[in-house]
Amino acid sequence: MPTQILTIGLAGLGTVGGGLVTLLKKNADIIERRTGRRIRLKRVLVHNIRKKRQELPDGAQLTDKLTDLTDDPEIDAVVEVIGGKDTARTLIARALDQGKHVVTANKALLAEEGLPLFEKAKEKKRIFRYEASVAGAIPIVQALKDSLASNHICALTGILNGTSNYILSQMTANSLDFATALAEATEKGYAEADPSLDIDGFDTAHKLILLLRLSFGLHYDFAKLPIQGIRDIAAFDIRLAQQLGYHIKLIGQARDTTRTDAHGTPLVEAAVFPALVSHSFLLARVEGSFNAVHIKADAAGSLFFHGRGAGDLPTASAVLADLLAVAREEYPNNTGFALDIPKASLVSPEEWTSCYYVRLMVHDSPGVLRDIAGCMANENVSMSKVLQDEGDASGRVPLVLMTHETSQRSMDRAIQAIRDKLNVREIVCFKVLSWPRSACPLFLPVRERAA
Amino acid sequence: MPTQILTIGLAGLGTVGGGLVTLLKKNADIIERRTGRRIRLKRVLVHNIRKKRQELPDGAQLTDKLTDLTDDPEIDAVVEVIGGKDTARTLIARALDQGKHVVTANKALLAEEGLPLFEKAKEKKRIFRYEASVAGAIPIVQALKDSLASNHICALTGILNGTSNYILSQMTANSLDFATALAEATEKGYAEADPSLDIDGFDTAHKLILLLRLSFGLHYDFAKLPIQGIRDIAAFDIRLAQQLGYHIKLIGQARDTTRTDAHGTPLVEAAVFPALVSHSFLLARVEGSFNAVHIKADAAGSLFFHGRGAGDLPTASAVLADLLAVAREEYPNNTGFALDIPKASLVSPEEWTSCYYVRLMVHDSPGVLRDIAGCMANENVSMSKVLQDEGDASGRVPLVLMTHETSQRSMDRAIQAIRDKLNVREIVCFKVLSWPRSACPLFLPVRERAA
Repeated sequence: MPTQILTIGLAGLGTVGGGLVTLLKKNADIIERRTGRRIRLKRVLVHNIRKKRQELPDGAQLTDKLTDLTDDPEIDAVVEVIGGKDTARTLIARALDQGKHVVTANKALLAEEGLPLFEKAKEKKRIFRYEASVAGAIPIVQALKDSLASNHICALTGILNGTSNYILSQMTANSLDFATALAEATEKGYAEADPSLDIDGFDTAHKLILLLRLSFGLHYDFAKLPIQGIRDIAAFDIRLAQQLGYHIKLIGQARDTTRTDAHGTPLVEAAVFPALVSHSFLLARVEGSFNAVHIKADAAGSLFFHGRGAGDLPTASAVLADLLAVAREEYPNNTGFALDIPKASLVSPEEWTSCYYVRLMVHDSPGVLRDIAGCMANENVSMSKVLQDEGDASGRVPLVLMTHETSQRSMDRAIQAIRDKLNVREIVCFKVLSWPRSACPLFLPVRERAA
Repeated sequence: MPTQILTIGLAGLGTVGGGLVTLLKKNADIIERRTGRRIRLKRVLVHNIRKKRQELPDGAQLTDKLTDLTDDPEIDAVVEVIGGKDTARTLIARALDQGKHVVTANKALLAEEGLPLFEKAKEKKRIFRYEASVAGAIPIVQALKDSLASNHICALTGILNGTSNYILSQMTANSLDFATALAEATEKGYAEADPSLDIDGFDTAHKLILLLRLSFGLHYDFAKLPIQGIRDIAAFDIRLAQQLGYHIKLIGQARDTTRTDAHGTPLVEAAVFPALVSHSFLLARVEGSFNAVHIKADAAGSLFFHGRGAGDLPTASAVLADLLAVAREEYPNNTGFALDIPKASLVSPEEWTSCYYVRLMVHDSPGVLRDIAGCMANENVSMSKVLQDEGDASGRVPLVLMTHETSQRSMDRAIQAIRDKLNVREIVCFKVLSWPRSACPLFLPVRERAA
């Protein structure tokens, strides 16, 4: 077939933009052989056109004027990798208005203010893709949108932030405390100068909102999502968890309850939280800055994807996949969800049920365990495992309780009772990750062979 | 958007065909909400139209005439899931000739005689898709064809046959010998009455040929692929491997050497073989009838996919993904490789290098280890680990040697020397899986953050 050329404008020449330029130069032949298409980079939007940068492909030029991208009639598609919300929103909206297709890696914008942009793309009949926004090189948007299009998605569980996972992995491997591991991650360039977006769970939350839309076809208010980060995780708890057969991971999870709230709005359990993950789950084996997503779907069953969630070339690989889809002129309105998207209602976090890991520092005196067990029993929380570790110089000993499944409300009340009645100050409590169960059962047992 | 209807004919109502009918009835609403398309099943081709079967969707009818599918002007696309080669080839060719799009799950046909069908699809400008042919519900064809289109694929390593993996998992978990585990798999319906296709590696080989085309854009003669199955694996070796930190898995692997042979044909290492896989690799954790694929790509880096490789609904999920792509009217010639596909040349298996596990039964007498080590040293094979286990009643003891990387030729010669000089009859030798290394290095270290 004759080679077709897609002319693009690139906004942003940071990590991802730089990776895209590298990849376009290096693998142009591979792309053409495989797809019959060639990508021609015409303009690159940067803040400062005088700054020394990597060499651009032949014919590509720097500009600091947004309209040089959006209004150039030769440009077919605009790639937005500048990040942030205001300029990016302006750029994407104008590009769509001017009839350009758009590819973006901007998870924050799409999660918090994305719907009007999807609407505009539909109205203008332009392609709007964002594979690189979630989990870097892992083709999770494509998988949910196309490969699993015929499936009811029951649950989605992900490790979606490489920085947090790197920090937790280092804490685990080298027995570091959080502050030391964070400092090391910052020094090595895995964490930003202001790491809050990563370690406080907001980045994971942005990605979870995008995956929720694709999984359940429901819209979530970002502001309503319960989000807990990893600042409070102690090296001590990581070690105890390991003794019990778990790794601690920052998890983004969404489960379809298949129920509706009082107003008839679909009820979904979704949150970002640190959790104990059993060694026997593949998710527990996600190390360093890698990302992973586990999906439970009614037909496909259990699917697990693992790969690089960030970095210049892995992310550029995802951007290019989108650009090549644009070059194939895929059906523009292939959003993967209906644009008259229903709102979802959140299950109150208090109603979520989970198993829990509770670690307390107690004085090693007779009756302590009895009193603590009493506080638990009063709230109908039953225990699956108790572990008492060696004490410290102060005479206090760590006591770990693993519970059976219980609601967060019961767990909170039991902990409050322990605080009040036993004067225990240091209590740490984490969820233990369980595979999603009954809410949405596989509707038929899988037949492996013909009868 | 208004709902568009794709009318299909289905050939075959066995495991996969039955799953497709179930899924079409159950999830039609989900499919429509997500994609704006509805799939209408019009005709189902079966061998015996009188046999009692599951209820079809409204309006669908059974037929035993192939042309009722291929020649019906109302039918847009034909799904081929009858298996076998002759009827399937006739059906697909005629459907394309009559202007139908085709979706198939037929790995044997595509691997052994697929190229003329791809050519015909191109000539007729029809869509020809086969996601369900490889690794069931795992979207690996889509990933290689679209998501990784901008990547040079360095290596691909897969567990691609669920039956073999189920048997090996049962042997490992319950210390069964091969014959017992096979009998159990047959009884439970995981293995066919004639299990050769699965356990002798041919099914894995078919899938590997398809993945090779997509990964490297090269054609392989199926007949030339080195294939070794799992019949010769003893429970004993599985136990010894475990002691050393490995699982034994049936692997399909292909690596791009980036070299050419004397005629200028690209040289690729590809084979199907049982191998020891370190516990530290995700591939070692693939249990039961699951499949998995690991890809090393120059931009995306390391990617790992895990999911159900067979079964009615998981495979039907993949077939439906293809049908929905047809409904989106994706660019017909999106094969993922150039149709003037170059031939690949195989690296001679003798030249492959690998680490090896060698297990011998020897008489426990002075000088035995010295003599064996001498045979190894004469062929420049060096050892990384030696393990001697307890002996049996005959006075023979098992001796395990783990080697550093060496060529298969050297390994074969060393083993022959041990057989000849020491009169050792029982020698077992397996490759130890290593992650693909230098042949195709990542061309740039990944930058996690902007400079």
